[in-house]
Amino acid sequence: MNKIITISRQCGSGGHTIGKMLSEKLNIPFYDKEIIELASKESGFTEEFIKDNGEHAGGSLLYNLVMNLSYAGTLQSGTPRTIQDEVYFCQMKIINELAEKGPCVIVGRCADAILEERDDVVNVFVHAGDEFRIRRCVERAEVSEEKARKYITERDKKRAYHYNYYTDKKWGTATNYHLCLDSGKLGIEQCVAIIEACYKK
Amino acid sequence: MNKIITISRQCGSGGHTIGKMLSEKLNIPFYDKEIIELASKESGFTEEFIKDNGEHAGGSLLYNLVMNLSYAGTLQSGTPRTIQDEVYFCQMKIINELAEKGPCVIVGRCADAILEERDDVVNVFVHAGDEFRIRRCVERAEVSEEKARKYITERDKKRAYHYNYYTDKKWGTATNYHLCLDSGKLGIEQCVAIIEACYKK
Repeated sequence: MNKIITISRQCGSGGHTIGKMLSEKLNIPFYDKEIIELASKESGFTEEFIKDNGEHAGGSLLYNLVMNLSYAGTLQSGTPRTIQDEVYFCQMKIINELAEKGPCVIVGRCADAILEERDDVVNVFVHAGDEFRIRRCVERAEVSEEKARKYITERDKKRAYHYNYYTDKKWGTATNYHLCLDSGKLGIEQCVAIIEACYKK
Repeated sequence: MNKIITISRQCGSGGHTIGKMLSEKLNIPFYDKEIIELASKESGFTEEFIKDNGEHAGGSLLYNLVMNLSYAGTLQSGTPRTIQDEVYFCQMKIINELAEKGPCVIVGRCADAILEERDDVVNVFVHAGDEFRIRRCVERAEVSEEKARKYITERDKKRAYHYNYYTDKKWGTATNYHLCLDSGKLGIEQCVAIIEACYKK
């Protein structure tokens, strides 16, 4: 029986909203930014720092190259070397604990890959065409179309980088997920209905 | 309103079966190998030749490199240069004609990319874990597990190559499709039900 829903999402696709609606329908906890707070308590890093580093690997190419070398070291020695690694491993620990605790919806933070050994998880990827995502962004953040386009592009680039870096998978590849849904084509409500049906099965 | 369902699929995932079931439920025509027959009549190539070249670009790396160069020429001159190109363009013409004719289910052959300008299409990608696909293959083709594994791996490699070569997309990337479904996790019946609901919406 399924217990956990993980939602990965393109920026502006409504993945957060879909997760929230599911958690309300199914009456189970919802974790998105809530993980930041938990990780902050666990690690001692500020919430701001975790927000910046927890899902969006930043830095220059050189910085990331250095990080890569450090991470290779991590895998051998078992000790995280960079503070970004520490944030990742802290969030990983929290996600595993949340999954143990009981049914829930977890948004982002490589949760699909972190929980891949479990067979009680439904992994979902929500995406949509640029137009749909930009419109949502403009409406919600009250920014210009141009700004919204730039924002979602950069955000997804960082999310992809972070995911590809910490897992052995490629962000947005269909085979990583049990369900990939185009929320622009299907609509938010239908996405919720499909995920709910698959979760309950 | 939706009119056409295209199904791309990993070998052994049950994509063909799902398409067939949908066509029966919705009472609309089903095109998979049927396109080979149509393309044979249209082009004068034998069905065998089209089967080998229509969805699985073969040849050595050198051959494919040469083909790539030829194709670049195609785009500029508008005249297909290789016989593989001719098969592709012939199938493209047929798929466009079928879509014009009326509601239908089309399996494979880059139909999602060929019909991407239309807004009455539901593009689906069906995939599943190796174990599920190998088991289906062993049961249906009565081959050994080892042979089945080799077969599905090679077949998907060729499908991916063919798709990536003729479209500007990458096979199996979630954003190409409105729905990506793991038939191993969800089951064939539920895949059919999800696609049917999305099609009717």
